Amino acid sequence: MKDKVLFPVDKLVDFSNGLLVKVGLTPDESAIVTDTMILGDLRGVKSHGIVRLETYLQRIECAVMDPRARMSWERNSGAIALLDAGNGFGQLAGTMAMKEAMRMAGLYGIGMVAVRNSNHFGIASYYSMMAMDKGMIGAVMTNASPAMAPFGTITPLFGTNPLSVAIPAGSEKSIVLDMSMSLVARGKIRYAELTGQKIPEGWALDEHGNPTTDPIKALKGSLVPIGGAKGSGLSLVVDILCGLLTHSSRTGEVKNITDVSGPALTGHVFVAINISHFLPLAEFKNSLDQTIQQIKKLQPKNAGDRVYMAGEIEHELLEKQQREGISLDGDVVQALNALAERYNSPKLSQ
Amino acid sequence: MKDKVLFPVDKLVDFSNGLLVKVGLTPDESAIVTDTMILGDLRGVKSHGIVRLETYLQRIECAVMDPRARMSWERNSGAIALLDAGNGFGQLAGTMAMKEAMRMAGLYGIGMVAVRNSNHFGIASYYSMMAMDKGMIGAVMTNASPAMAPFGTITPLFGTNPLSVAIPAGSEKSIVLDMSMSLVARGKIRYAELTGQKIPEGWALDEHGNPTTDPIKALKGSLVPIGGAKGSGLSLVVDILCGLLTHSSRTGEVKNITDVSGPALTGHVFVAINISHFLPLAEFKNSLDQTIQQIKKLQPKNAGDRVYMAGEIEHELLEKQQREGISLDGDVVQALNALAERYNSPKLSQ
Repeated sequence: MKDKVLFPVDKLVDFSNGLLVKVGLTPDESAIVTDTMILGDLRGVKSHGIVRLETYLQRIECAVMDPRARMSWERNSGAIALLDAGNGFGQLAGTMAMKEAMRMAGLYGIGMVAVRNSNHFGIASYYSMMAMDKGMIGAVMTNASPAMAPFGTITPLFGTNPLSVAIPAGSEKSIVLDMSMSLVARGKIRYAELTGQKIPEGWALDEHGNPTTDPIKALKGSLVPIGGAKGSGLSLVVDILCGLLTHSSRTGEVKNITDVSGPALTGHVFVAINISHFLPLAEFKNSLDQTIQQIKKLQPKNAGDRVYMAGEIEHELLEKQQREGISLDGDVVQALNALAERYNSPKLSQ
Repeated sequence: MKDKVLFPVDKLVDFSNGLLVKVGLTPDESAIVTDTMILGDLRGVKSHGIVRLETYLQRIECAVMDPRARMSWERNSGAIALLDAGNGFGQLAGTMAMKEAMRMAGLYGIGMVAVRNSNHFGIASYYSMMAMDKGMIGAVMTNASPAMAPFGTITPLFGTNPLSVAIPAGSEKSIVLDMSMSLVARGKIRYAELTGQKIPEGWALDEHGNPTTDPIKALKGSLVPIGGAKGSGLSLVVDILCGLLTHSSRTGEVKNITDVSGPALTGHVFVAINISHFLPLAEFKNSLDQTIQQIKKLQPKNAGDRVYMAGEIEHELLEKQQREGISLDGDVVQALNALAERYNSPKLSQ
């Protein structure tokens, strides 16, 4: 691995937009896709950061993702809707879907929009936070390619199937839960593979069901679900909601982002809950503030440690990187610049 | 522990109804509360079975739960509602709430009903299965008294905060996930305490944060969340939705069922999703059947083992016990009969 390089946020934004417009996105669309990747980097989820540009563009090159997809409402009535993403960018479908869920929540108190025939959408919390920023509770889930063996089996079939819930606080940092149903996200293992690092034991099993610290073997094997049968059951529920309810794909059919043998067939679900339909928003925020303060005052496990709420570490990292810039591994910079060269787009400069 | 005794289901139903009517429930109300407890026993969740009669009646005796509570709609518009349970039986509030969520889902595709000022409601899957039985997806969560320490701390504050999701299949057994956010439900530890058994190491920590196999020490200490920070985060989300969004109670304020120093202040959330708003129900059920068949055909971890889906073991136990009767521990029978004697109600007979 080469040395890390620090980039101001706007340099990365320009770089990403330059490339995305080359493959056919409008400036508005490019801005959304770039925004999700930058947020991934800013919040420390590097696996869903700008490093993903390479795989997105590869999917377009191989004609298994359509950058000019027309999205269409297959169903839209009352407080639910089903959006066909037309095999376009998951980020564009996701943004459109969460906006619609929020519109419905404004009318009915809750809105649920499912998306079919989509692709990888970046970090789930990008969308849950859209609702949070408007005083709503946002919940988002997506299916993903096979990574975990259903409880009691050894064959990876379920995706890590992340769930994000974002809830607005007042004076305290808002709650942003963003978690996969595996002990660790597969993206962390993919990032370890890319940067040549080992993974801690306990994260994953090899293809024979044995523990491994080799990210390459882990990616061929399976990830361990949280709570055994519980995490396995939660993954199944996400697969059913995102894949079957959207008639997008059955369990196990979603393609890995690096598998260019066909469309990814990803499905997502977006839910917005309008807090003010239940109680005045200020009252809710105030009671969440008090709850957060109460938890942060508890005795820490290790004397002197800070107690962190869900999303707090990521938020602090975001603020730091917004000030100081985003640090990328040398290998990643090299790969991105090779990509820029291929597309005749400006390279990354500090 | 005394020997186990086998009771036909209808004997337990009559016994429970006899007692509940004595404390002021109407026959219709009594039937609902009894039904939830019997379903708990039938599905093998004995901690939420008829053994709970004693604690429910104790709460009524101590005037910290109102068997004649008037429930009232605090908010009800569009696809959301907020029900004030008036400190009555959680089962009565829960049934009313899930019915309303299903009515809304019939109109708008989704319905969400939150309940405040309630009490223990039995097994969460009782309500999620109400929706499932009508071709909907049911999701239910409830807060509970402090049991788990927020991640990074040693003080139990979060409840185990169970979540149930029930999803209708066609020819296969339907999916019924019913799980707490702790590695094991506190009810299992309470049942071990009641029946004088030890618990396996890894389930819980004592009050100093050390592992314990003593259920009494575990009940004074804390339960371990699934996936560390993930289970802790999920618990917080349930606490926020059930406690803060309902302005029912703040994190940590819900009373243990055996704590008669005041009302329990429990909150619940019920969601129904109308599948036929997304695609024809038969088509959905057919694709879920195929998914279930696909998973059950996977190579099991241990050669020759069956692969079970969420809720399948519980369903088979239910069918067996419906045929053969429900087995109760001798100690439980003794306690129930002492209760009947106190209320001048007929005792249990085989």
